[in-house]
Amino acid sequence: MRKLLAGVTLFCTSAFAFQGTAPVPLRGYTPEHSASEVSWEQKYRAIPEADRIKETMRRLALRPHHVGSVYDKDNADWLLAQLKAYGLDARIEEFTTLFPTPKSRKLELIRPDGTKFIPKLEESALKIDPTSGQKDEQLPTYNAFSRDGDVTAPLVYVNYGAPTDYEQLEAMGVSVKGAIVIARYGQTWRGIKPKLAAEKGAIGCLIYSDPKDDGYYVGDGYPEGPMRPADGVQRGSVMDMPVYPGDPQTPGVGAKPGVTLIPLDKVDTITKVPVMPISYEDALPLLKSLGGELVPENFRGALPITYHTGPSIAKAHLALAFNWDRKTLYNVIATIPGATLPDQWVIRGNHHDGWVNGAGDPVSGASAELDEARGLGELLKQGWKPARTIIYAFWDGEEPALLGSTEWVEFHAEELSKHAVAYFNSDGNGRGYFRAEGSHQLENFVDSVTKDITDPETKMSAYKREHLVAIARATPDTRAEVRSRADTRMPALGSGSDYTAFIHHLGISSINMGFGGEDQGGGQYHSIYDDFYWYTHFSDTDMSYGKALAQTAGTMMMRMADADVIPFQFTDLADTFKVYTNEVKRLADTMRAQIKEHNTQIGEGTYAALADPKKKRVTPPVEALTPYFNFAPLDQAIDDLSLAASEYDKAFAAHAATAPAGLNLQLIQSERVLLDPGGLPSRPWFQNMTYAPGFYTGYGVKTFPAIRETIEQKQYATVDTQISRVAAAVKREAELLKSATKTLNGN
Amino acid sequence: MRKLLAGVTLFCTSAFAFQGTAPVPLRGYTPEHSASEVSWEQKYRAIPEADRIKETMRRLALRPHHVGSVYDKDNADWLLAQLKAYGLDARIEEFTTLFPTPKSRKLELIRPDGTKFIPKLEESALKIDPTSGQKDEQLPTYNAFSRDGDVTAPLVYVNYGAPTDYEQLEAMGVSVKGAIVIARYGQTWRGIKPKLAAEKGAIGCLIYSDPKDDGYYVGDGYPEGPMRPADGVQRGSVMDMPVYPGDPQTPGVGAKPGVTLIPLDKVDTITKVPVMPISYEDALPLLKSLGGELVPENFRGALPITYHTGPSIAKAHLALAFNWDRKTLYNVIATIPGATLPDQWVIRGNHHDGWVNGAGDPVSGASAELDEARGLGELLKQGWKPARTIIYAFWDGEEPALLGSTEWVEFHAEELSKHAVAYFNSDGNGRGYFRAEGSHQLENFVDSVTKDITDPETKMSAYKREHLVAIARATPDTRAEVRSRADTRMPALGSGSDYTAFIHHLGISSINMGFGGEDQGGGQYHSIYDDFYWYTHFSDTDMSYGKALAQTAGTMMMRMADADVIPFQFTDLADTFKVYTNEVKRLADTMRAQIKEHNTQIGEGTYAALADPKKKRVTPPVEALTPYFNFAPLDQAIDDLSLAASEYDKAFAAHAATAPAGLNLQLIQSERVLLDPGGLPSRPWFQNMTYAPGFYTGYGVKTFPAIRETIEQKQYATVDTQISRVAAAVKREAELLKSATKTLNGN
Repeated sequence: MRKLLAGVTLFCTSAFAFQGTAPVPLRGYTPEHSASEVSWEQKYRAIPEADRIKETMRRLALRPHHVGSVYDKDNADWLLAQLKAYGLDARIEEFTTLFPTPKSRKLELIRPDGTKFIPKLEESALKIDPTSGQKDEQLPTYNAFSRDGDVTAPLVYVNYGAPTDYEQLEAMGVSVKGAIVIARYGQTWRGIKPKLAAEKGAIGCLIYSDPKDDGYYVGDGYPEGPMRPADGVQRGSVMDMPVYPGDPQTPGVGAKPGVTLIPLDKVDTITKVPVMPISYEDALPLLKSLGGELVPENFRGALPITYHTGPSIAKAHLALAFNWDRKTLYNVIATIPGATLPDQWVIRGNHHDGWVNGAGDPVSGASAELDEARGLGELLKQGWKPARTIIYAFWDGEEPALLGSTEWVEFHAEELSKHAVAYFNSDGNGRGYFRAEGSHQLENFVDSVTKDITDPETKMSAYKREHLVAIARATPDTRAEVRSRADTRMPALGSGSDYTAFIHHLGISSINMGFGGEDQGGGQYHSIYDDFYWYTHFSDTDMSYGKALAQTAGTMMMRMADADVIPFQFTDLADTFKVYTNEVKRLADTMRAQIKEHNTQIGEGTYAALADPKKKRVTPPVEALTPYFNFAPLDQAIDDLSLAASEYDKAFAAHAATAPAGLNLQLIQSERVLLDPGGLPSRPWFQNMTYAPGFYTGYGVKTFPAIRETIEQKQYATVDTQISRVAAAVKREAELLKSATKTLNGN
Repeated sequence: MRKLLAGVTLFCTSAFAFQGTAPVPLRGYTPEHSASEVSWEQKYRAIPEADRIKETMRRLALRPHHVGSVYDKDNADWLLAQLKAYGLDARIEEFTTLFPTPKSRKLELIRPDGTKFIPKLEESALKIDPTSGQKDEQLPTYNAFSRDGDVTAPLVYVNYGAPTDYEQLEAMGVSVKGAIVIARYGQTWRGIKPKLAAEKGAIGCLIYSDPKDDGYYVGDGYPEGPMRPADGVQRGSVMDMPVYPGDPQTPGVGAKPGVTLIPLDKVDTITKVPVMPISYEDALPLLKSLGGELVPENFRGALPITYHTGPSIAKAHLALAFNWDRKTLYNVIATIPGATLPDQWVIRGNHHDGWVNGAGDPVSGASAELDEARGLGELLKQGWKPARTIIYAFWDGEEPALLGSTEWVEFHAEELSKHAVAYFNSDGNGRGYFRAEGSHQLENFVDSVTKDITDPETKMSAYKREHLVAIARATPDTRAEVRSRADTRMPALGSGSDYTAFIHHLGISSINMGFGGEDQGGGQYHSIYDDFYWYTHFSDTDMSYGKALAQTAGTMMMRMADADVIPFQFTDLADTFKVYTNEVKRLADTMRAQIKEHNTQIGEGTYAALADPKKKRVTPPVEALTPYFNFAPLDQAIDDLSLAASEYDKAFAAHAATAPAGLNLQLIQSERVLLDPGGLPSRPWFQNMTYAPGFYTGYGVKTFPAIRETIEQKQYATVDTQISRVAAAVKREAELLKSATKTLNGN
């Protein structure tokens, strides 16, 4: 994409004056411009059609379309043809990346008497579900980026395989050294499970879907209901993406032909132990074989058994071998050149590859996105010209490791750093309430758009529905703020979809959005049952929320592309950074208090009092107290930022109409300045100092991660340094806003 | 027992003077007397023997021994013989009460196609468990005091059948009118389930044991583990005991021959609908037959199904008929006349009847109690003479309705009101931590005893173990108080065992105590498996905690019986009453805030926002706000009591050694003054204004119940009146203490 915008020249807008009174113009727009924008946006929102979105889903989900499959390429070609048919400038951008697939999978439970239980490792084709029987094209159930291995060992059950689960097991004297762990899906991102198991000394890892988490406990099993059936399996990547996502052999570099590859045996994001996902039907005999104590209450799933920690007397034998091939990715990219600000890019993306048929994930989002592109194509024909350049991307290879988006971002890093204004992501979509997460300077903007979207079911605005649901679900402690805060709080972005490289590697303001929350779901996730039959029976069955997504995201693209001044708002950002600061301080205080209490109890003899001679319990040692840290630089920077943000707001209110062109170029940098080229401790690819996926959560975000994780991991000596680095990032944001304010004030 | 103490005359103690220094004497004892008491107590605690307690358990649990069974009478005769052999003055006191047993039980599920599922309603005899096969003597699985009935209707699942469960169902538009409800055991006392079901319009009630609550979810099923097996059933009473316990035909009167009986059809504590308990194996097909929506998360058990609310299309047919016979109860009563204060009675009790073999409930407590009696018999032979009269009771008929203890208390009401100092109850006992609940003026006393008891496992004192475990289990908010409060807080008494008539009807200071908490349990409860095999494999297998209970309760009896001044302590009581006051105030404030928020949300349109067109939801109406109540009389009374309690403490410290005999007679009244002869709203039998079993909880205590329940039930108009009545009771306590202080100060 380095040549993406060749031939388009920068067109400077002349100064303009706000005129007229009501209605309140859109932020960053003059009243006249706002009126014409509103009119174009209304025209746009009349275009998306639920039935078209449904037909797109039927087409894209018709056959399995994982990376390297015939239908993956076929879908890319079809998407390209559609975009061209809409009159858009579209092309396919290829990369070639590592993508392992199973060569052989073996699992058996060998009982002391030599008899075996052999799990079937296969999902059933269902007569009622026409695509579930496409066995020839389906990937078998496996975890991508598991290493090869052949291990035999007793089993130990580790709950979700999260750090706190191991703490509980260790207190019970249970070790996983030399064992194969069996963990259940959920809570942490799946790649954390083998990573931590290996760190704790296990030699293999099985991950099963407990019915408590996405099976009959949650809702009726498929095909009577939407939840995972007895032999349903969740495929998925287990690459150590909290270190870096994308092609493991080309970190930081777009995987084009000729690029130097890290040899496979030097790649440290491939798992250290073999790992495989299984169904609960296959897991049940394994779990029944476990001896040892009863598990703690939070370890218990919904299988009709008494859960024990293990180890098992029977031994599990796990043997996995993979084809370590490099496959071609097909990113489909359409561009609408900006009429007046072509070097400012507004980007939209959703992946198109699936693990199998992928109707929910990702086609429900991708088919909405395609109808957005059609809508913008229509507007262009009617004479609409976006000020900024608009890019629509349909990513390939998201499922294995965010491959398509990451390689594209890495390849175009220099251009993107200069030109990208914002990135708007979606993925699977569902029925219910709007939800967005992302950069806090976009909170006001997102609300401004969702106020203009009609919720299909209630006919109130998507904003109002989301807001009222948030009020209903708030705790008595948080409700007053939910009611009164001017803009809806957006959670920060962790990982799990294609925004990752944009926001965390390049510092491009990003949003991830979608509708959902009314239906049970998740039981089809990454299985052969995530298909058209499932989606049209158990999710947004009439695609009215697919249409709402197309209306929402398309409006965002237009409003961001057309604004005279980029409508970022920074008091929300400053306010949220203050919340983060309070959280990391409280984390240190809470840890200190807990350790103090822990040490006191050891001294008092509490562990002796709780000792049950019938159970093994390990009394933990007295621990060093969490020291006090120097938060002063951060407090100072937050105060500076708060002040700078409100000064910017005042200047914006007074002078936005006469803002010089340079202001937008400053605003584009507002997420970039949060980067630190040194990156996060032990993972330099992640450069955004304000948020990142957790090193031990995988999906879940850690805000101010360099501070938070060094405290959590008790690397106390480095905390003050990390505070200073975060403070410096916040300070850069404050300085940027001061400059922007000067620009606005004309001095 | 009206003639229990005939021939014993009051012997007034002369005044005495405290002398000497260390060690700190027992509260209410002179130093010399304390030293001799300590020495006698030490002698006593050397007597109980674990092996004897085990043999007693083997004997008492050898055959089913419910009310009216051959072995119930046989056990009573055997207990009598033992007590006599210990040299005690013992007798059997008989009463005759209603005790229904099944004549016929029928349950079937009739499917639309006419086919039927017929549950087996039978627990399996197990080869490994020798008494489980005593089928000829076992009561069938049933709920005592269910009415007769023959009903056919669809099923609706109501979770635990508690008030909040019905609120959730009503919000979902689910009605039980004309249905048979199926509820799970747990949370509320079982009798609440049919009571509330009938109030809501159901015509029948089934209660099943979900494995989540006492089956494989909690621990391994019997006989591999202690938990309820697939066909295990919990028998139990469903009489409306929160109205009054004891013989339903003789409320308030001891059921001796010749007493006028309320006709059966006028008894309002028999259930309004037929009710029967079933196993989860029998429940499973019924639960699977339920249609309707998914249940809320808190309704879900551990069966491998998706729980639905119902109604079912299939119909359940429940037909029950009972023998409404009156049976003879055999209370075994032993008396040790007091040497110097014979008209002051210290009473100990544990029931001896079981639902079947009843090894855990009640024999684990009863066999410890018997060894206490043996121990005191031994001391008597060695020359010990208790100052006060000691009464040991082995109650019959506790299981159906606290029959034996209630009729005895009602029959001896006049004597007991005059003479009873305190009642010490136990019931089932287990392995682990000491726990007591009861009258707050006894908190200091209970700690003083448990400080002298050695925990069998840790060798620390039972007090210290209990205290440290409480610290470990406290929340960060409550831990500081747990650590620093001079005496251990005792929860107040609700109901569920034989202390009920003592504390709630007659106002006799009471304690319920036992050990437990280390083993999973409850899975054998009220089934044929609660027997010697179960108990000696899965609970206090070597009876070391049976011995500890005998040591603890026996020491309490001695220390209370011998004290020069009854060692009640009232600042604990005043402090706790202040907590109750704050709780009922907070209840009103919280309800008001919740209703206000609820009304606000209706106005905002929150219910409209949450409306899912695929689900039925009922928007609740705007509700009147909880008014403000006049807590001033209660605040004033609490202040008076706090002052009076600390004045009493000061006077006690200065003058207890020279206290005149009249002081004890005042102190005996310290729980009596909390009674109000008008009783609680709509249940006059419960006269204690400070605590009662909840009208809709059954076991669970409600403190200041007249206030709390009128607020909870939104009977706002009467709340101020109830506050005044409770304030008057507290005021009476304050006045009593002022008089006692005067007595101590000699003016």
